[in-house]
Amino acid sequence: MHTQDEDVATAHVAKRALAVVNDDKHVEAYYMGWHEAQSNPYDAVQNPGGCIQLGLSENTLSLDLLDDWFSTHSTAPALELENVLNFKAIAGYPDVYHGLLIFRNLMANFMNELYGGAVSFDPEKMVITTGATSAIEILAFCLADPGDVFLVPAPYYPGFERDIRFRSQVDLVPVPSFSSDGFAVTRAALEQAFEDAVSRGRKVKAVLMTSPSNPLGMTYSRDQLSVILDFIGQKDMHLICDEIYAGSVFGTTEFISIAELVMPPRVDPNRVHIIYGLSKVLGIPGFRVGLLYSWNSLVLDAAKKLTRFSSVPTLTQQILISLLSDTHFLRLFLSENLKRLQQRWRLVSHGLQEAGLEFVNCTAGFFCWVNIGKVASVQTKEQELELWSKLLHVEGLNVTPGSACQCSEPGLWMSAQFTLSAAELAHDNLSLLALDLSASDDPTQDPTLPRTQPFVRVWQKSTDGPIPLVRVNCHSSSTGDAEIIDSIKAGKKFELFPGNDSFTCTFVWMGTDRMLASQHFVIYSPPKKQDVLMMPFYCRLCLWTFDHTGFDLYNNATKSYVQAHNWLLSSIS
Amino acid sequence: MHTQDEDVATAHVAKRALAVVNDDKHVEAYYMGWHEAQSNPYDAVQNPGGCIQLGLSENTLSLDLLDDWFSTHSTAPALELENVLNFKAIAGYPDVYHGLLIFRNLMANFMNELYGGAVSFDPEKMVITTGATSAIEILAFCLADPGDVFLVPAPYYPGFERDIRFRSQVDLVPVPSFSSDGFAVTRAALEQAFEDAVSRGRKVKAVLMTSPSNPLGMTYSRDQLSVILDFIGQKDMHLICDEIYAGSVFGTTEFISIAELVMPPRVDPNRVHIIYGLSKVLGIPGFRVGLLYSWNSLVLDAAKKLTRFSSVPTLTQQILISLLSDTHFLRLFLSENLKRLQQRWRLVSHGLQEAGLEFVNCTAGFFCWVNIGKVASVQTKEQELELWSKLLHVEGLNVTPGSACQCSEPGLWMSAQFTLSAAELAHDNLSLLALDLSASDDPTQDPTLPRTQPFVRVWQKSTDGPIPLVRVNCHSSSTGDAEIIDSIKAGKKFELFPGNDSFTCTFVWMGTDRMLASQHFVIYSPPKKQDVLMMPFYCRLCLWTFDHTGFDLYNNATKSYVQAHNWLLSSIS
Repeated sequence: MHTQDEDVATAHVAKRALAVVNDDKHVEAYYMGWHEAQSNPYDAVQNPGGCIQLGLSENTLSLDLLDDWFSTHSTAPALELENVLNFKAIAGYPDVYHGLLIFRNLMANFMNELYGGAVSFDPEKMVITTGATSAIEILAFCLADPGDVFLVPAPYYPGFERDIRFRSQVDLVPVPSFSSDGFAVTRAALEQAFEDAVSRGRKVKAVLMTSPSNPLGMTYSRDQLSVILDFIGQKDMHLICDEIYAGSVFGTTEFISIAELVMPPRVDPNRVHIIYGLSKVLGIPGFRVGLLYSWNSLVLDAAKKLTRFSSVPTLTQQILISLLSDTHFLRLFLSENLKRLQQRWRLVSHGLQEAGLEFVNCTAGFFCWVNIGKVASVQTKEQELELWSKLLHVEGLNVTPGSACQCSEPGLWMSAQFTLSAAELAHDNLSLLALDLSASDDPTQDPTLPRTQPFVRVWQKSTDGPIPLVRVNCHSSSTGDAEIIDSIKAGKKFELFPGNDSFTCTFVWMGTDRMLASQHFVIYSPPKKQDVLMMPFYCRLCLWTFDHTGFDLYNNATKSYVQAHNWLLSSIS
Repeated sequence: MHTQDEDVATAHVAKRALAVVNDDKHVEAYYMGWHEAQSNPYDAVQNPGGCIQLGLSENTLSLDLLDDWFSTHSTAPALELENVLNFKAIAGYPDVYHGLLIFRNLMANFMNELYGGAVSFDPEKMVITTGATSAIEILAFCLADPGDVFLVPAPYYPGFERDIRFRSQVDLVPVPSFSSDGFAVTRAALEQAFEDAVSRGRKVKAVLMTSPSNPLGMTYSRDQLSVILDFIGQKDMHLICDEIYAGSVFGTTEFISIAELVMPPRVDPNRVHIIYGLSKVLGIPGFRVGLLYSWNSLVLDAAKKLTRFSSVPTLTQQILISLLSDTHFLRLFLSENLKRLQQRWRLVSHGLQEAGLEFVNCTAGFFCWVNIGKVASVQTKEQELELWSKLLHVEGLNVTPGSACQCSEPGLWMSAQFTLSAAELAHDNLSLLALDLSASDDPTQDPTLPRTQPFVRVWQKSTDGPIPLVRVNCHSSSTGDAEIIDSIKAGKKFELFPGNDSFTCTFVWMGTDRMLASQHFVIYSPPKKQDVLMMPFYCRLCLWTFDHTGFDLYNNATKSYVQAHNWLLSSIS
């Protein structure tokens, strides 16, 4: 008999379970970083030294709009839990596991509008799943048998490794692309990857791509998509096009859905499958709503049956039925969300430019693809991971190393999210670490940058002068906080105290009924125009202490800053 | 190039996808019946000739209690969507996919109490999934590789075929049991099934069982469980014990969790895995909340990772956190639900006895295992399916044929649910069809029984006299309905009109704001005691027109009947 519990456990589970436990090929860093960010999360008050998560593609920029909608629509039929009809509909077995017809209808309408009317989606070709993750896995199951291969234009989303290999046991083969030609997917690279796999005795069943690209943040042109479509047609393959970032294209490039090009005889529609979901476009990954869209009736039949393992609760669907029915709100939301993404990207790209970093001028998604290696003298995968580890463990920033995305230029690129609240300053930190490393002869020396230093340095860099007459007082635990809380409760959220020779600005971040953090900014000496123009830096400094739970106050804080800014300008002129 | 779309579709999908589409081994009838019940659902008003679903194990008997709770707790923190903190918590990525720690804690507490304190569940050994279906599939994936075998005591839940074969490609081998010894699982039958599988070159990895049993509705004794535990230990196997009906034991037999017996050295805890969920105990399958519980750290590690495909939305968890925190309510709910199950089973078993049908005296679950074949001269699987098809297509009743449960006595047994609203009368119908068939020399002759006839016959059988002086007037489209609606809106839901020589009782079933159905019952001649005592039959006749959407009014209707009953009794005496 066995004596060691662990031995017994190991001996008796399936080989495929051991693979799931032990094997995160090539993407260890991605999940290690994620785990670190989860187990030691940054919090302005509770854990200011914690890890800031820039490795998770989540957009919280417009959650306030959705929150408003839910607040004002809490009486919508689907949310009225006291209504017995609805409760019974919510509690009972659903008629189908692949999504209520009315929900699929509304999703189709939503996508039709989102896609600019260029295509018309049919709810009967749609299978709703527990997030896009599950839709991808189901497609992998349906299109390939264990050991078969998908070709994936690299750099690609590290999560595909788990999505595809874990349960469906399909292998991924990267199709390399290069910065020198803008990371284009070429026919030559596709052919090469295909031939390599075939020569190893593998069956290549599909090309899997994200469009717009994650992590590049780029859209694909009609020509690019045509190259891929022609390739899969001629090689007797499928194309899985993950369009989860359709609806998050904030730049000037055009998004072309693969659905626009699916026309026989050029391509057999049976070969093309689209992934979509609400996690990115609405910023609600916690709702776990994804879908697969296919023209292939066999794939649809199998997928519908497989949703018994991955169905979306009726309650979730009912709530989203209410939301998707409000097309007026959705139009406003989508437009405002893109504006906010634009603004955020403008800020971040400006910072990256200032730092002299190379980056892809992204037009879609919530992340940027930054060449941090070049300035930091990093040229190998090992050096990249060393720098990545330093960022994670010393600076408390989790980004995604290019190697986890199978980037074909090892040691150069990293992906970092820019849509979380703390992201802007973190990006500065990231930039400045790179500057720091590049400035230093020995990159291993003095790697620790206090979190406040970068701003001082940005200041110095942008003004080319001394540190201005600014004092930052953090009184988060002072007795004065009680007064601030009272004034907030009385409706005076942000107060400006003009004085004779100083200007004080207090920023407060609130939870439900307690203050999460406050900061008093005091500018000594009568303000000069130059100081006022520098205020955005303070603003970004404030963001530094700003955590997820206080997001809704960001806009108020910004408004107060604008007021302060105007007041200062008027008092100077 | 290919010309036929269908050919291309077939040629290019994975073998396993084709298997999912085409292969429902042995359980075609189960899913065919389900499909029929879905596509042509019975509705008292809209579709009175539709199919009544008795093949789905759903308990709606106590939904009114949960509905009340949700109505009075709509201000619970988790439901306050206007609260920005909660909305953000609901919208964002969850920290873990396998269930929030607080939710797992509450589930553990709930189960500890439900199991009578006999075991203590550890939230760290718990993995929350999209329904128990998904938990079963994940366990199959983790414990066996494709082509391996699970032994399953038969008769068993037909859904296991899809749960286990579909994605994990593990085969199920029935372990036969017989009515002659109360369907006991014997060591001899386990050994035989094991040897047979091994001789066919298969690896037998686990025994999979439901405890309490679905479809038998029986609990297992400590001795029975020990036989199985000893067997899996000696054969180097796992045990998956699906305890989803724990908490639905309404009879006098004791439920013993397998967790009570998991103690080394008798059995290595690494080999035992429990399935649970809220679909049955709370009657909320639409919430899609299941779990697996394991002592095996490798299984837990793999399962946690696999929940990326089958996670429960944060919103669902938050709502259930509120519910599970209200232990006072839950105690009342569980106790009342068992009472209602008892009452319902008393009625149904009484009807079955009257009809002279053999059945298992079930003490758990929502279904009964009825020997319909004996009286209906059905002795083969083919005859069983013929009778089943007649019930489905002529009588509009979907039950589960024994052969879909791999019953080792083909042609004899059927499983039928008794917890749906329309179930009681449907059972009468079922019983009487059997009587009808057994009375006829040629069972294929005159198979059509009008739906009203059975009640007349039950009446005749129980009174052994003529049909009483009862007239049933259905005025569902008369102008009088408007008045009834008005009186309901005014709060007078059920009116009794005592008259000189007649008694009128009006029953109304309401949707949100419109009447679904109404019936006026007029009893002519001064009521005699005998007539009054017959009233339960009218009550059951009313149930006939009672559909799912009007369930909440059942209790009110019953109360009115009791009032009428008392009034009549007092006027006679």
